[in-house]
Amino acid sequence: MRDFYEEQLNELHTQMIAMGGLCEKAISNATKALTDGDLQLAEEIMKNDAIINRQERDIESLCMKLILHQQPVAGDLRRVSAALKMVTDMERIGDQAADIADIVLDMNEKLPDKFLHVCKMGVAAMKMVTDSVNAYVDGDLELARHVIRDDDIVDGLFLKVRGEILDAIRDGSSKGEEVLDLFMITKYYERIGDHATNIAEWVEYSITGERSNEN
Amino acid sequence: MRDFYEEQLNELHTQMIAMGGLCEKAISNATKALTDGDLQLAEEIMKNDAIINRQERDIESLCMKLILHQQPVAGDLRRVSAALKMVTDMERIGDQAADIADIVLDMNEKLPDKFLHVCKMGVAAMKMVTDSVNAYVDGDLELARHVIRDDDIVDGLFLKVRGEILDAIRDGSSKGEEVLDLFMITKYYERIGDHATNIAEWVEYSITGERSNEN
Repeated sequence: MRDFYEEQLNELHTQMIAMGGLCEKAISNATKALTDGDLQLAEEIMKNDAIINRQERDIESLCMKLILHQQPVAGDLRRVSAALKMVTDMERIGDQAADIADIVLDMNEKLPDKFLHVCKMGVAAMKMVTDSVNAYVDGDLELARHVIRDDDIVDGLFLKVRGEILDAIRDGSSKGEEVLDLFMITKYYERIGDHATNIAEWVEYSITGERSNEN
Repeated sequence: MRDFYEEQLNELHTQMIAMGGLCEKAISNATKALTDGDLQLAEEIMKNDAIINRQERDIESLCMKLILHQQPVAGDLRRVSAALKMVTDMERIGDQAADIADIVLDMNEKLPDKFLHVCKMGVAAMKMVTDSVNAYVDGDLELARHVIRDDDIVDGLFLKVRGEILDAIRDGSSKGEEVLDLFMITKYYERIGDHATNIAEWVEYSITGERSNEN
């Protein structure tokens, strides 16, 4: 019975790492598709989103089974319930990468050079996702707390891009559609940063039993 | 033991209804604050968001306790696990109402009359939230399915508002800040519709054991 329990806990860990890896790939590909105007890559991201969605359900089922049949206590219970909540944030990261890919397909051209900070935002958000997944994998509390602090960088870049977009509206140098599309992309990156922060907070909780943030 | 179990299940139901009620109020107040430019109401929404966040945590704890100590089976387990996931969507609805309130505070004026469809979107999204909560409270499968269909109305209105905003950029009749603020508000309403749809899908699952949508 205990062996089977350990096996299921390991299986959960493995599935979480796999799902985290897919999310990382989704966001790094989304930024690549955006900067290169790579439509084929954008299509691929949208297809892979279905896999991420399925993985969320599989992990949810596994967590429910573990809680119900194995009745984990203390640290193990925290790990399982944190996983149950983290997958929601991971799935949203996948959704937002797909939303960015959808806009790339619609724009049908690569990111104009003048919107340099959008790309920087993509890189910063990607780092947060990678770090939050690694913090989970390694149970690294310091790294988790680092991710939570990094959210300020992404939020700062968001304000910079917003300024660039307002300039483009004012001087009429971009079409309205382009402006709204870019604004949505920056908003998606900002949200990805928020989800990575949530994941890091769940890692913190699963290690310490405390939740630092009330948002 | 069973009496205590029933009591906890009833407590969960009561808390879910209370949280649903707060979300309904948040979104209806957000639309009112936006159309009237009511800054005091906007402040109130932002304060109440903390209450919604706390409620999410309380319900999560109650669900975990129920699953762990009472080991519910079949229909009851579906109800508890659906509640555990639904609160995430409810909490996001609260967040988005607070995001709208935040923009209202920033705009410091009421919604310009020409953006009529933004208000219509608010009303349609609010109806979806109210209906999804009622579908949960009454275990009403038909109403849940109605909510899922209603999402098309909100999505249709989103495209209309987007068109109005593009017109405003093209003819220069609105400031850039106003345009971006309004676009975000419409995006928040669209997301609120998505969250209400998720809630309705969880209601459907808790009644039928089937999940209709893979998104």
